[in-house]
Amino acid sequence: MSADSQIYRASTTAPVNIAVIKYWGKRDTALNLPTNSSLSVTLSQKSLRTHTTASASSSYSGQDSLILNGEEEDIQSSKRTQACLKHLRSLRAELEDKDSSLPKLSSFPLRLVSSNNFPTAAGLASSAAGFAALVRAIADLYELPQSPEQLSLIARQGSGSACRSLQGGFVAWRAGTEADGSDSKSQEVAPVEHWPTMRALILVVSAEKKGVPSTAGMQTTVETSTLAPARFTEIVPRRMKEIEKAIQEKDFETFGRITMQDSNSFHAICLDSWPPIHYLNDVSRAAMNAVETANRKAGKIIAAYTFDAGPNAVIYYEKENAHLVAGVFKNVLARVSGWEGEFSDEIRPNEYGSLEQKTLMTLKSGVSRVICTGIGGGPEKIDRHLVDEHGQPVSSE
Amino acid sequence: MSADSQIYRASTTAPVNIAVIKYWGKRDTALNLPTNSSLSVTLSQKSLRTHTTASASSSYSGQDSLILNGEEEDIQSSKRTQACLKHLRSLRAELEDKDSSLPKLSSFPLRLVSSNNFPTAAGLASSAAGFAALVRAIADLYELPQSPEQLSLIARQGSGSACRSLQGGFVAWRAGTEADGSDSKSQEVAPVEHWPTMRALILVVSAEKKGVPSTAGMQTTVETSTLAPARFTEIVPRRMKEIEKAIQEKDFETFGRITMQDSNSFHAICLDSWPPIHYLNDVSRAAMNAVETANRKAGKIIAAYTFDAGPNAVIYYEKENAHLVAGVFKNVLARVSGWEGEFSDEIRPNEYGSLEQKTLMTLKSGVSRVICTGIGGGPEKIDRHLVDEHGQPVSSE
Repeated sequence: MSADSQIYRASTTAPVNIAVIKYWGKRDTALNLPTNSSLSVTLSQKSLRTHTTASASSSYSGQDSLILNGEEEDIQSSKRTQACLKHLRSLRAELEDKDSSLPKLSSFPLRLVSSNNFPTAAGLASSAAGFAALVRAIADLYELPQSPEQLSLIARQGSGSACRSLQGGFVAWRAGTEADGSDSKSQEVAPVEHWPTMRALILVVSAEKKGVPSTAGMQTTVETSTLAPARFTEIVPRRMKEIEKAIQEKDFETFGRITMQDSNSFHAICLDSWPPIHYLNDVSRAAMNAVETANRKAGKIIAAYTFDAGPNAVIYYEKENAHLVAGVFKNVLARVSGWEGEFSDEIRPNEYGSLEQKTLMTLKSGVSRVICTGIGGGPEKIDRHLVDEHGQPVSSE
Repeated sequence: MSADSQIYRASTTAPVNIAVIKYWGKRDTALNLPTNSSLSVTLSQKSLRTHTTASASSSYSGQDSLILNGEEEDIQSSKRTQACLKHLRSLRAELEDKDSSLPKLSSFPLRLVSSNNFPTAAGLASSAAGFAALVRAIADLYELPQSPEQLSLIARQGSGSACRSLQGGFVAWRAGTEADGSDSKSQEVAPVEHWPTMRALILVVSAEKKGVPSTAGMQTTVETSTLAPARFTEIVPRRMKEIEKAIQEKDFETFGRITMQDSNSFHAICLDSWPPIHYLNDVSRAAMNAVETANRKAGKIIAAYTFDAGPNAVIYYEKENAHLVAGVFKNVLARVSGWEGEFSDEIRPNEYGSLEQKTLMTLKSGVSRVICTGIGGGPEKIDRHLVDEHGQPVSSE
């Protein structure tokens, strides 16, 4: 094989992140600039991750391509994907301009193959992990020197929340103030090692229909909600400071309270939008009720719910309270799948949850599966490629 | 019977009102002073009313008493009722001081008998009609010269929203700014004759349990919601102006939009409270969805939902659109009771409502009865007394 036809490859995995201070509203839709900063917990990749291989070769014909979970995606008409590829190519071209010995990868077509280790049907936002993996894999392929924070500027243009999946632990996305978005990027607030006992139980709720897509919903809120401006300009900035302090001090009570309040604030401005946007349903509220019951029994906040643009509940708790939090759900939902997850050994059914009958019945009939996971690290470079040495996609797992 | 032992009696009926700009938050809990003005539609008393007889006699022994729906109520320990009685007695005493020929009713014990023509179990806020009827009946018994607006200052101390049930049609409750509440009273924005074609369909939803009581809920919101201040100080004042103009112009599209937006704003600040307060459930949201569908099909707003502190939907529409609004619900809910109401002749089932299957099923399983009603007038003095000529309570109807 001549150097000209060599298949260059790099592979990475990237995590899902679940925000505790929510991103809801863009001040610039083309650049994905948010109306407010946000903060998330990076989840363990053992349970949820996207695996992406980026490859390039002069032997590839045609345009850039992406195969996602075995299906060819139309990336030519995706402005967001094109913005990421263009930006990454320009950074590679800069390197090639400085060092003529480098292969001209920036001029080769890209073959991208990507796969998730969780069912798309679960309704978990996969675009964050997807764009983070895409950007990280191509940056590795191109041997770019940029830091994760610098790369987050690129991932952000693919999917806003993707910029928080380029690092592990607790990650802030600073809204920034520049019109060109040059200061709207991620920052690691604390690494996974700072608070490794943070766990997350995800209750996957079978929604009767898909809700309003988040990009459209955000715009509706920005344009119509009369309650939203105070959230953007005052409430979230104050909460960001408070929750970052709580994270530094590993103060779960404050962390949990703010997490729940901010989820409620986000869904409140959705309801206040015109037409109103509903993501929470009676099953979501039953999960909130069960969390409130666990906290009441404990006499303090040991569990915190949060909901994204859908009815699924994500419940944060600390390992030492696994029995008092996840155990209550395991007792109620023993028959649904997912209890065999990575931290499942910590969870034994707790029959003393004292949930009301109505809450019990609503959870039993509405939760279709659970995912037992916890805090995790950022993207990882791996040797297992989804493109073989001949440039052909391989089945992922 | 000597004049001394004469039984003095006065009877009135008073209506329920359903706010289109919501009252949620007190700036003074003792005086029931609101954080914002509100506005309601007075509903027809044929469907919903409280009938109250106030009687007084020197022959009555013991303390003031109230029998409500056949049950003796403890009014001695009700600060709110005591405040109303004290205020009314002092106005009567002023008259007696000026004219010594008047019987000294202010010194006699009161016997009050009251009954509602709708089931308490329906979950309809009856305290507004109840306190309005109580104040109006005693004012009539005492032959007080005060106007309805002046009496609203008294009824307000019993139940905030009661001050809007002393007049008919469209009634505003001006929040006022005085610390003593002297300018926090009702004002008729337009009489029933101005827009007599306004109809209301109430969907009574069987709630699994009673929600947070409104007085407690309001205080939680005032103390904890970070989104509420903008509602109190900016959003509601603006909407009051807009909806009053819409009422004057009989502009249903604007009236309906603001009605729905303000209901959503109220429930948004409930969700934003800590702990969060939920009154809407999946059945409420199915009703919202059905209203949105009717409006979409009509190409304009012909129906407007609103929800108080519970899951029941009240849907306003104009008589000319009965088929396109109430007809859709009649087709879905043909088997529940209540379709025989006063405006029911206008409503025939409309099988072309095009509701989604899920919405249909949720409404069918969650709505326990309907009430077909419309706009109505204020309290009416009537000759039928619930206390007989011997001072004994009579069974009401």
